[in-house]
Amino acid sequence: MKKIYCIFSALVLFSFATSAQNQDSVTIKKLADDILTNGKLYDNLRYLCKKIGPRLSGSANAQKAVLATAKMLKEAGADTVYLQPCMVPHWIRGKKETGYIQLDDQSKYNLQLCAIGNTVGTAVGGLRAPVIEVKNMAELQKLGVDAIKGKIVFFNIVMDPTYINTFQAYGDFGAGRFTGPAQAAKYGAVGAMVRSLSINVNDYPHTGVTRYDDAYPKIPAVCISTKDANWLSEQIQSKKVVSAYFKTNCKMLPDAPSYNVIGEIRGTEFPDEIITVGGHLDSWDLAEGANDDGSGVTQSIEIIRALKATGIKPLRTIRAVMFMNEENGGKGADAYLENALQKKEHHIFALESDAGGFSPRGFTFEMTPDKEKKLMQWLPLFYNYGVYFFSKGGSGSDVGPLRKTGAVLAGLSPDSQRYFDIHHAATDVFENVSERELKLGAVNMAALVWLVSEHGL
Amino acid sequence: MKKIYCIFSALVLFSFATSAQNQDSVTIKKLADDILTNGKLYDNLRYLCKKIGPRLSGSANAQKAVLATAKMLKEAGADTVYLQPCMVPHWIRGKKETGYIQLDDQSKYNLQLCAIGNTVGTAVGGLRAPVIEVKNMAELQKLGVDAIKGKIVFFNIVMDPTYINTFQAYGDFGAGRFTGPAQAAKYGAVGAMVRSLSINVNDYPHTGVTRYDDAYPKIPAVCISTKDANWLSEQIQSKKVVSAYFKTNCKMLPDAPSYNVIGEIRGTEFPDEIITVGGHLDSWDLAEGANDDGSGVTQSIEIIRALKATGIKPLRTIRAVMFMNEENGGKGADAYLENALQKKEHHIFALESDAGGFSPRGFTFEMTPDKEKKLMQWLPLFYNYGVYFFSKGGSGSDVGPLRKTGAVLAGLSPDSQRYFDIHHAATDVFENVSERELKLGAVNMAALVWLVSEHGL
Repeated sequence: MKKIYCIFSALVLFSFATSAQNQDSVTIKKLADDILTNGKLYDNLRYLCKKIGPRLSGSANAQKAVLATAKMLKEAGADTVYLQPCMVPHWIRGKKETGYIQLDDQSKYNLQLCAIGNTVGTAVGGLRAPVIEVKNMAELQKLGVDAIKGKIVFFNIVMDPTYINTFQAYGDFGAGRFTGPAQAAKYGAVGAMVRSLSINVNDYPHTGVTRYDDAYPKIPAVCISTKDANWLSEQIQSKKVVSAYFKTNCKMLPDAPSYNVIGEIRGTEFPDEIITVGGHLDSWDLAEGANDDGSGVTQSIEIIRALKATGIKPLRTIRAVMFMNEENGGKGADAYLENALQKKEHHIFALESDAGGFSPRGFTFEMTPDKEKKLMQWLPLFYNYGVYFFSKGGSGSDVGPLRKTGAVLAGLSPDSQRYFDIHHAATDVFENVSERELKLGAVNMAALVWLVSEHGL
Repeated sequence: MKKIYCIFSALVLFSFATSAQNQDSVTIKKLADDILTNGKLYDNLRYLCKKIGPRLSGSANAQKAVLATAKMLKEAGADTVYLQPCMVPHWIRGKKETGYIQLDDQSKYNLQLCAIGNTVGTAVGGLRAPVIEVKNMAELQKLGVDAIKGKIVFFNIVMDPTYINTFQAYGDFGAGRFTGPAQAAKYGAVGAMVRSLSINVNDYPHTGVTRYDDAYPKIPAVCISTKDANWLSEQIQSKKVVSAYFKTNCKMLPDAPSYNVIGEIRGTEFPDEIITVGGHLDSWDLAEGANDDGSGVTQSIEIIRALKATGIKPLRTIRAVMFMNEENGGKGADAYLENALQKKEHHIFALESDAGGFSPRGFTFEMTPDKEKKLMQWLPLFYNYGVYFFSKGGSGSDVGPLRKTGAVLAGLSPDSQRYFDIHHAATDVFENVSERELKLGAVNMAALVWLVSEHGL
C-alpha cells in the first residue's frame, strides 16, 4: 500500500502548495525547533527508567510512575491533569527462574530463561519432563496427544529475518508465545518452553504475555534465549536430550487498583472534539521499559509541553494519555473507552506511539476513504522531518478500542530494525534510546496532532 | 530536492511496471534474502573491531586490516583480490593527553579532551595560556590580533540541533575543527581548544582532522567534550577562568607505505565498464571505527559475497574497494583515481558507504540530467527495503575524485540521528552497530550496484 500512497501524496503536492500549507509548515517548524532544542522528553524518560524502573501493572513502581507522569504533565503546562481509575491484573514473577537441559552424558546445560507473563508457576520442586520440539503450530497439531502428553513442548518458531517490517514477523511467528502454552495443554503437555521473539541470536530471554484457554489446564511456560533455542534444537536433533527442567515462581494475585494518567489542553474553538495521543505507562518487569513504552509516554507528554511553550493554541482538545496495563491486560484502554462512551465524548482522532523510540519513518492509519484524502494531503509536510509514508495499518492496542467511537486511529511507525533486539528483555533500557531519534518521533507526532487540531478530520 | 524526486518516482511508477522491472525486483529480493539470512558482514565487522581495533593510517593495525579484508574478499569469492599501494601520512597520538582549566579560586577542573588529528604536540611541559571564547568564525576575525595574541582560542561553535540532517550541521558548524587552529594562529593564538562536533551533551571528546595553513605557525589543538564546553563557557562568562592548560604528545612521522584493498567480480558482458563500491579501512584511533567506517567496508565486501553466493552474474565489473587514509589524508582515494586514469579505465558508477551502519533511508547522487531519468525509474524497487528517496547530494570523499572519470557518483544515506553521538569518539564501537540495520544498508547497496551492472548508466 505504501507505493500507492506515495503516488497520491506526490500528485497532490502540485495542487496543494497553498498558503494554508505554508502556514502549517511554519507552525510545524516552530514545534520541531522547540522540541529539538528545549524538549524535556529525554530527561523525563531518564527519570522513568532510572529513578523508577520496571513498571508492571499492580506494582509499587507502576503507582510511582502514575504520580511521576501526572507531575510531568502539570509541569508541561496541561490545562487539566487527572487520573482515570481501572482495575488491573497483578502478576508477579517472584524469585528469578532457573532451568536446564539434562543431556545423555549426565551433564546439565543451564538455560537463559524467564517465565512468560501471566503464567502460573511450577510446583515448588520445579517441573521436569521430556522435551519435544515443534517448529510451527501445524506441527503441534500433527503430533497430537500421543506424542505430546506428559512432555514440555519446545516451540522453536524462528522469526523470519527476511521480513523488513519486523512487527509483521512478530505477528506471523509469535504464536508459540501468544497461544503456545494453551495449545500445548490441549494435547496434554505439562509445560512450554518458547524460543524468544527476537530476530538476532543473543543471550537474552524475552518475556511477554500468553493467553491460556479456560478449557484446558494452565501449564507453566518460559521463554529461552534465541541462542539457547538454537543450541537446544541441535541437541534434540542429535538425540542427546534426556529432559528439560525449569522452576518458575510467578503467580497471579487479585486484581489491583490503578490508573490511566491524562493531561489535556482544551481546544479554543471546538473543545468537545477530542484528539488523543498516548503510550503505555506499564512495562515488563525485566528492564526499564525504555522503548516499550517509556518512549511513547514521554513523547505524548512532550506534545503538551511544546504546544504550551510555543504558545500555539489548538482549536480542538488535545489529550495526552498514559495508558495503564497494555502489556498484560489492556484494562487501561478498556477504561478509557468506557469513559468515552459513557460521557458521549466526541473522539475524532487517536494516535499511539508504542513501537519504540527509534527514528520515525511513517504513520499507519485506520481510516475511511473520505478521511484518507484529507490526511494524505498533509504527507509532504512531513518529508523534512524524515516521515515519508502514510499507510493503512494498525494503530495500537491502547487506542484500538476507540474504533467504536468512529475516531480515525493512527500509530507512529519508527524504524523497526532494532526493536526486537530489546523488546521485553533486560536490554530495554534508557541507554538504548537515542535522544535525537526520540525527539524526532515527538516532532512528527506533534505535527500530526496539531494538523488534526487545526483542520479537523 | 527530495520532494521533486518523490513526485518523479511516483509518476513513472504507473508507466514502468514492466516485466523487466518485475524481474529486477525478483533478483533484488534474492540478494536481500541472502544478505539478511546468510550475511557475513556483521561477523566481519566484529573481527575488524574486536580482533584488530583502531586502524589509523600508518599503524600496525591498519596493516592488519589490509590483510584481513583481503582475506575476507577472497572468502567472499571475489574473482580477483589485490592490494593497491599508496603512501599515507603517519600521525601518532602518543601518550594520552591531559588538560585542565585553572579557576580564580585556585581550583583546577580536568577536561575530557583529545588532540585533534594531524596536529603538532605541545612542548614537553605542555601549553598554558589565557583562554578566549569565540562562538563562530566571524567573532574570531572581529576580535583580531590584539585580543587573540598569546592566547588559547576556545571555539565553542554549537551544532544546531534543529538540523534534521546532522551531516549538514557538521558541515555548517564544523569550521572550529576544520580550520580553527589555522585561523587562530593567523591572529597569534598559541593553541586551540575546540568544542567537539557532537550535537548531544556528553562526556566524550570527538577527534578528527584539521588543516594547518603553511603561512602561519602550526599550533597545538585539542577537542573537548560538549559537556566540558558548556561548563567552560559558563565559567568564562562568570569571569572565573584564569588560564587553560593542556599537554598533547602527538606528532607527524614520515609518510608510510600502505594499500587500498580491492576485490572484483568480472562482468560477463561488459567487463571494462567498472562499478566501484567502497568504504574506508582506516579509522580514528580512539575507538574501533565500527560505524566509521567498518560498516562501509564490510557492506562492500558483502555485496561480492551475496552476488557469488546467489549465483547472480553481473554483466559489468563490480569492484569492492577498501580505501586507505580517508580520515587524515585521502591518499588511498588519490591513488585509486590515479590508477584509473593511468590505465584509462572506464568507470561508470561509484558508490560509497561512509555515513554509518544505520538504517538506510536513501541515496544521494552526483549525476547529469540524462542519467537522472534512468536512476529515478529504479526508486520504487527500493521502497520495500526502506529506501524512499534518491536525491542530489554529495557521494563521499573516497569516490569523489572519480568525478574526473565522468562516473555517476553516489552515497548511501543512512539515518543520521545517532551518527554524531559516536563519530570519531571512543563510543564508535561494534556494540553501537545494529546487525539488521547494517545488513539492510548492504541490501540496498547491493540492489543499486546490481541494477547499474544489469542496465548500465
